[in-house]
Amino acid sequence: METRIKQQIEFIIEVDKLKRIYRQNIITDKSRHETDAEHSWHLALMAVLLSEHVGGDGALDVLRVLKMVLIHDLVEIDAGDTYCYDVESGVDQIAREKVAAARVFPILPPDQAQEFLQLWEEFEAKETPEARFAGVLDRLQPLLLHYSTQGQSWKEHGITSDKVRERNKATRGVSGVLGDLVDAIIQDCVDKGYLPK
Amino acid sequence: METRIKQQIEFIIEVDKLKRIYRQNIITDKSRHETDAEHSWHLALMAVLLSEHVGGDGALDVLRVLKMVLIHDLVEIDAGDTYCYDVESGVDQIAREKVAAARVFPILPPDQAQEFLQLWEEFEAKETPEARFAGVLDRLQPLLLHYSTQGQSWKEHGITSDKVRERNKATRGVSGVLGDLVDAIIQDCVDKGYLPK
Repeated sequence: METRIKQQIEFIIEVDKLKRIYRQNIITDKSRHETDAEHSWHLALMAVLLSEHVGGDGALDVLRVLKMVLIHDLVEIDAGDTYCYDVESGVDQIAREKVAAARVFPILPPDQAQEFLQLWEEFEAKETPEARFAGVLDRLQPLLLHYSTQGQSWKEHGITSDKVRERNKATRGVSGVLGDLVDAIIQDCVDKGYLPK
Repeated sequence: METRIKQQIEFIIEVDKLKRIYRQNIITDKSRHETDAEHSWHLALMAVLLSEHVGGDGALDVLRVLKMVLIHDLVEIDAGDTYCYDVESGVDQIAREKVAAARVFPILPPDQAQEFLQLWEEFEAKETPEARFAGVLDRLQPLLLHYSTQGQSWKEHGITSDKVRERNKATRGVSGVLGDLVDAIIQDCVDKGYLPK
């Protein structure tokens, strides 16, 4: 078999490990925590449906957004999931994730390794419209899960509404419709007692 | 809030249920069965990496392939996972999935509901290059998991190599490289005793 397809298949099998990385948030039936692979799928589907709320038609390269969200958490195969409100683990998160990127992506043929590394760096930098939209989705998706599970894991971690507002503050700059949505959901969470003021 | 974004969010929360649908195959650490959401993510990533093996550059609309694989199993939210070698459950599978499609997709705004329904029907019909490639991935991905887990769930169900060859027979018509790959993996599974002849 050719080297190229061999490398691609080795990578595809390696990234199966994303199904072993459990996130802090739970799925909507509250049966268990969500995996990174499931989260990445959910973001991709959201990108397809919600990209229309960013600029006009063609304002975003949706294919690039999809590639970005599909791979954005692959570094967690080695670095693990860092809880977004955990200040202590956050300190060396970037360093740990860079080491992971330098191991995981080069399993691929060099051109694809380079493409994925660049997409991951673009996602992390949040400078392009595609990366900013992907970042908004990455915060909106867990918000929807917290909302649907009456804030169960927020309560377990003592998270307050100002922290959630702070975490989602970039949304309005990317999309007015999504900004309104996030504000309305957070307010409803406070009103319903899922989230302390 | 506008009706349109409300319908989109209702759909996004509804399809979280795909994380509760467990497939027959297990993940590579053998800790548990894979969920449909994880499987869909894995297919999407494979589509990005392997589309180059189908025709020349631009032979496929990769964005349409991605949309297709992201939504191809949503009907299983209601219809459940039908094991591909289970002849009995296969009998009314199409009817059950059509009923599911008629409930799940119309949660979306009409234009997006229509787009997703058409993508799902395209995937099922396997007539376009995009649908045929998506179908090949949908068979290759579990093959890679079976291979990586020494055929554990094949053994549990008494699956033989002729059945696996039959299930993957469309691959060569879509891509010579992927056809060679599938043949080599199945042969290696037989040689290693993961799969009886």
